[in-house]
Amino acid sequence: MKIIEGGVTAAKGFKAAGVNCGVKKRQPGEAWDKYFEGKFDLALIVSDRDAAAAGIFTKNVVKAAPVLLDKELLSSGVARAIVANSGNANACAPESMENARRMGAAAAAAIGTEPAKVLVGSTGVIGKRLNIEAIEDGVPVAAKALSEKGSDAAAAAIMTTDTVKKEFAVTFELGGAAVTIGGIAKGSGMIHPNMGTMLCYITTDCAISAPMLKKALLGAADASFHCISVDGDTSTNDSCVVLANGAAGNAPIEHADAAYGVFLDALTAVCVTLAKKMAADGEGANHLVTCAVKGAASRQQASVIAKSVIGSSLVKAAMFGADANWGRVLCAMGYSGESFDPDGVDVAFSSAAGRISVCEGGRGLDFDEELAKKILLEKEIVIEISMSEGGADACAWGCDLSYDYVKINGDYRT
Amino acid sequence: MKIIEGGVTAAKGFKAAGVNCGVKKRQPGEAWDKYFEGKFDLALIVSDRDAAAAGIFTKNVVKAAPVLLDKELLSSGVARAIVANSGNANACAPESMENARRMGAAAAAAIGTEPAKVLVGSTGVIGKRLNIEAIEDGVPVAAKALSEKGSDAAAAAIMTTDTVKKEFAVTFELGGAAVTIGGIAKGSGMIHPNMGTMLCYITTDCAISAPMLKKALLGAADASFHCISVDGDTSTNDSCVVLANGAAGNAPIEHADAAYGVFLDALTAVCVTLAKKMAADGEGANHLVTCAVKGAASRQQASVIAKSVIGSSLVKAAMFGADANWGRVLCAMGYSGESFDPDGVDVAFSSAAGRISVCEGGRGLDFDEELAKKILLEKEIVIEISMSEGGADACAWGCDLSYDYVKINGDYRT
Repeated sequence: MKIIEGGVTAAKGFKAAGVNCGVKKRQPGEAWDKYFEGKFDLALIVSDRDAAAAGIFTKNVVKAAPVLLDKELLSSGVARAIVANSGNANACAPESMENARRMGAAAAAAIGTEPAKVLVGSTGVIGKRLNIEAIEDGVPVAAKALSEKGSDAAAAAIMTTDTVKKEFAVTFELGGAAVTIGGIAKGSGMIHPNMGTMLCYITTDCAISAPMLKKALLGAADASFHCISVDGDTSTNDSCVVLANGAAGNAPIEHADAAYGVFLDALTAVCVTLAKKMAADGEGANHLVTCAVKGAASRQQASVIAKSVIGSSLVKAAMFGADANWGRVLCAMGYSGESFDPDGVDVAFSSAAGRISVCEGGRGLDFDEELAKKILLEKEIVIEISMSEGGADACAWGCDLSYDYVKINGDYRT
Repeated sequence: MKIIEGGVTAAKGFKAAGVNCGVKKRQPGEAWDKYFEGKFDLALIVSDRDAAAAGIFTKNVVKAAPVLLDKELLSSGVARAIVANSGNANACAPESMENARRMGAAAAAAIGTEPAKVLVGSTGVIGKRLNIEAIEDGVPVAAKALSEKGSDAAAAAIMTTDTVKKEFAVTFELGGAAVTIGGIAKGSGMIHPNMGTMLCYITTDCAISAPMLKKALLGAADASFHCISVDGDTSTNDSCVVLANGAAGNAPIEHADAAYGVFLDALTAVCVTLAKKMAADGEGANHLVTCAVKGAASRQQASVIAKSVIGSSLVKAAMFGADANWGRVLCAMGYSGESFDPDGVDVAFSSAAGRISVCEGGRGLDFDEELAKKILLEKEIVIEISMSEGGADACAWGCDLSYDYVKINGDYRT
């Protein structure tokens, strides 16, 4: 498996585009060239042929209209395109379902397919009517701009408070065929296990059946998107969709065989990388914080505990302050809902600047506070937890809680 | 029922004291008068006779030594005194259980009772060895200072990041006898349903059996301490203990009769008031935020949803910014784990400055943003949620998420 440049257009047979249609800033009806200035807010991703399609979505009871629509459409297991906007979540909003359908229909007309084959995504403010006229105005422009180099523009068009674009792609061999998987994603608030306000779009030229694609996506998400937390809030709009168009020409994957295993590993690598990029770019984040748990009774236990630590406001504030307050780590383990022997827990912090043990057998060690601070000032920090319950391990990823998180979210709508 | 001045010494037969013994700042061995300067860190509460005793404690798997000790001692249902320190949680620390026992023994010796009748509490930093020498030095000083006016000093001595002392007392008649219940409490981080790093000590001169006292405490806590959240973190040290010494001379309460009902109501009133004081004084808090849910299928559902809203970082940040971002309210309802019809939900914000409807039938209303801001700038804010599931209601209390929360917790240990 090799990491390559690109994102959602890295695989054969996919084109993408991103434009500024006016959901965020400008009004419809302005001159053509304005569609490529300012903040992009409309992404279009198109396969040149029908693709197997699978998706996973928020478990929030309050679901945005595009989530409900995609769940309905994906029962066919086939799609040609994805159209997504940022700036408005189209959730709890007047005419939300009607507008989600209009958005898909506009894209279908622009690329010449049926509306039933176009998936729809939205992210942004909840409860405001979607400016569907702006989207209908922008979709044909995006369709004309579709390009094999369009991943970048599409990645930009789904950003809300994200500070960096998130793209990743890998290529690998499958029975003699070169197969590529690539994706784009956006965070960056409302990110919590079982997905935040994330949108993630992945394309691959692998030939794989829709059921196997769904199975692989569930497996990959379990080890990636479900292991990140920015703020404990699970949004109304979370969506992760994969399109697999078969352009690579490999023997189609239809069972959980060796080829499926190779595909799953590659898909997991793409999802883990995009998930970590989301955690690192959490709202106001200065640090990517990894919690690595080992010695747990089961992978499930390790994962629940790692997520509890990553999700603790107090741990996150301590990481912001580069304060080795490991007591909060033990505390967050303790309220995770898992039962374990606190006297069998060791805790260490590590980063590019070194590693320091701070707790052994559930008791604090005297440690070098200077060194601890140095370690915690690094951009990427690992909280290492060793338990004495068994041999299972798991990781979770998050970020620190900063003044900027509060600032960003204190007045998000204006 | 009448609200009266005072706290833990309002009821007959109780004395209390608070001193600065040096856990927080000074060293043992300094002159006597230094015990009454600076930040108090050692509280002593004593009944003049044996009292029925009951307690509830953190559900965190990682429990501080004093919590483990108190749970053991309370099996007798009898106690004479409580000794508690702030500045060090005596959790995950070397010799923690030994030091908790030494603390109780010191208090028992100073007031002339058995160690088995002295409950112990600690709050503060996790993982550091308790300065037990300072406590053993300070306990006799506190014992000499015991007074019927000592509630204030005891309330001060259990504060950590609290900005105000929390005391409350009520008096009421029970079969011709005047009965009093009063208490002191501290927050203010690590506060979450099922108790944060709270300590709460309540005394009453009511004659009531230990089992009925425990039953009343569980009922009162369900409607109060279990309904507040500051930051989603549940600490290792949470304790709420009640002593009932019978000095009021009422006919002892031994069954769930009418007198029990009157006592339960009064105890609940004390607990709700102390809980709201904790929420209002949450770390960095500028607002007491109440979430009032009505029209739920059950009280349980109403309570779970109210707590989910109060606990949302994004709702809390919006309240900090006086931003009527009700979409986050719906979102937090949706990930509460309860299932309900989003299209049957109305949301309004209210305060001393007025009331404004922002969402009806799950859809956003056009509302006056100026008025909404005015309402949300008040110190006490209510998020009103009306559902269409049934006739049950419940409240939860919390606070906003501010820069100061991050500041306080970014470097708590220094």
